[in-house]
Amino acid sequence: MTMTHPAADAAAPRGLKGVIVADTELGDVRGLEGFYHYRQYSAPELAAVRTFEDVWYLLFEGELPSVAARDDYARRIATARYLPSEVADLLPALVAGNPHPLAALRTALSQLAAVEGMPPTYDADPETIRANAIRLGAATPVLIAGLHRASRGLAPIEPRADLGHAANYLWMIDGEVPDPRRARAVEQYLILGIDHGFNASTFTARVVTSTGADVGAAVVAGIGALSGPLHGGAPSRALDTLDAIRTPDRTEEWVREAVAGGDRIMGFGHAVYKTADPRSVMLRGIAQSLGGDRVEFAVQVEETVERVLAELKPGRELHTNVEYYAGVVMEQCGIPRELFTSTFAASRVVGWCAHVLEQSTETAIIRPSARYVGPEPPQPVPDAS
Amino acid sequence: MTMTHPAADAAAPRGLKGVIVADTELGDVRGLEGFYHYRQYSAPELAAVRTFEDVWYLLFEGELPSVAARDDYARRIATARYLPSEVADLLPALVAGNPHPLAALRTALSQLAAVEGMPPTYDADPETIRANAIRLGAATPVLIAGLHRASRGLAPIEPRADLGHAANYLWMIDGEVPDPRRARAVEQYLILGIDHGFNASTFTARVVTSTGADVGAAVVAGIGALSGPLHGGAPSRALDTLDAIRTPDRTEEWVREAVAGGDRIMGFGHAVYKTADPRSVMLRGIAQSLGGDRVEFAVQVEETVERVLAELKPGRELHTNVEYYAGVVMEQCGIPRELFTSTFAASRVVGWCAHVLEQSTETAIIRPSARYVGPEPPQPVPDAS
Repeated sequence: MTMTHPAADAAAPRGLKGVIVADTELGDVRGLEGFYHYRQYSAPELAAVRTFEDVWYLLFEGELPSVAARDDYARRIATARYLPSEVADLLPALVAGNPHPLAALRTALSQLAAVEGMPPTYDADPETIRANAIRLGAATPVLIAGLHRASRGLAPIEPRADLGHAANYLWMIDGEVPDPRRARAVEQYLILGIDHGFNASTFTARVVTSTGADVGAAVVAGIGALSGPLHGGAPSRALDTLDAIRTPDRTEEWVREAVAGGDRIMGFGHAVYKTADPRSVMLRGIAQSLGGDRVEFAVQVEETVERVLAELKPGRELHTNVEYYAGVVMEQCGIPRELFTSTFAASRVVGWCAHVLEQSTETAIIRPSARYVGPEPPQPVPDAS
Repeated sequence: MTMTHPAADAAAPRGLKGVIVADTELGDVRGLEGFYHYRQYSAPELAAVRTFEDVWYLLFEGELPSVAARDDYARRIATARYLPSEVADLLPALVAGNPHPLAALRTALSQLAAVEGMPPTYDADPETIRANAIRLGAATPVLIAGLHRASRGLAPIEPRADLGHAANYLWMIDGEVPDPRRARAVEQYLILGIDHGFNASTFTARVVTSTGADVGAAVVAGIGALSGPLHGGAPSRALDTLDAIRTPDRTEEWVREAVAGGDRIMGFGHAVYKTADPRSVMLRGIAQSLGGDRVEFAVQVEETVERVLAELKPGRELHTNVEYYAGVVMEQCGIPRELFTSTFAASRVVGWCAHVLEQSTETAIIRPSARYVGPEPPQPVPDAS
């Protein structure tokens, strides 16, 4: 935290935009440069050459693991995949009535943290907090896959400790060991999504942690913030755009009509990046390496949208955002569309937990002020009758 | 929100202390005066002369209800008490393994919001948000009582629409219609706890709402923040102080030893109030009207602690906080000690929901910044092997 103390009760910009509320060593986004990083490393470069577990270690432990440490850590994560029966037995009940998958995941994570009795970060030693954070990060894909299968009346598929984090996730969805290209594509997507500056769900997790609450409470709150349309978005919406266009020959006409009609084209534009979103750039490359007509179509639509927008709305830098090619990659890798946002959560949960670990070393509760703007009190309370 | 925009990326005080992040018409705390209010009315005065449902109406609707409106509203709340089977049937499973009652409540509320498919506030019309907020506020005591009974292997007691909010809560705990004095004491405690400035759980609920998430996500996040020892505290700790002293004749000796030993005496001191906490003042009166040896003992301990502290730590204004007499009142009214924090949540949930309603009319996501303080990126990613 900063040592500069402006006058108390100072007005802040709307939404606290640009207000620094924490110092972090976990990473940052440089929107103008189209660059973001985890600790001192480019996030896309990490995704290019490292495993999900390596990057997890980096964020939790402060450095990339040694050869011995990385194997130990991957094993530790694999061991933390198994669910207690109080959680596993509950999954069918949590999808009865067909709730949104992210809402069911929120309930399942709350139950996991509750039955394991995760202690308040206020009292807990750092190793306990870290162990519970690994537990939640490792169990999240298990819960997503288990809830998904339960919603279809299918039994869960037991996690496999011999598979990496991403490959095991795909395995638990459909019971097929994914081919290495598919597993690696999903792994790279998961790495790219772990953290991204001080987004609203990360901030939420840090606020909850600042009260001394347990890491489970922070993660459950983060899921809630992520479920907001202004934050988590919906990677499936970009595919809806492709579906709406239907065939490549209709692209130009569809885009011109959409822009003329003032419609927002899903999958384009980002609040922070004014240049290409580096996640989108990398995910496009991953999609192209997977290949297929759908990917070619997506690239053609991207080119057409950017060309038409540049012509009709000159000066506005509108590029594909992370949603666009994330959706394409997940679809090509066989992840069901209704799991896209939950899969994003499976990535971001590791980032939330890293922020919980960092926030838990702070002592100040995050407790801003509001300005009362109603009628002056006290006024006499009128009689009830 | 304010229109004043300081320079972007300005450093903020630690924990955002004193930083105004929202305009609110819901109320405020004047710590130096020992005064707090809901809208334009003194909160203790409302507690003195109004029902919980009246104050709920005031916060949600902006004014105290007319005679006709108050009956309708109380009926509407009573109707919202009934749980869907997807939630009611789950309660025993949520207390298996003996989780903290507040953690089990968090899971139950998450499940309720999930199975009812509460829509994002981003898309929902205000009446839908309000209806869901009433649902969550009305169901919270039902969930607390049901979880408590399930944890003892007891069947739930069905809510009664002919009882007020507080009386029905006590009824559902032990199946006895409480005598009116006991019901009224709990009702007054619940009114006093609904809101209290911009506390950390209220802020959390507003951050989650600012992403456009549903009111359930906001309430679940609020529970998480409340579970932190730096926020929700534990009204039962004040009773632990009484238990530790054991008998009135040991009070003076015990207090002097505690102060000499540098121990914090639970139930005394508050971050905002530098004078008597108005909630504590009113709750002491309520406790005294209930009467009994325990209450006399509590008053004696309070007087002794304040006298000894004034002698040994002159100049420090340390008075009983809300926890102290809240614990005494709840104990005298037969609420089990392990439900004290959940009972506080049953009160505060109405405040969170009022803030959700207010925040949902704002358009800006609450998304502050962090300052990256780690090693300069990008550094080359070392080889994995």
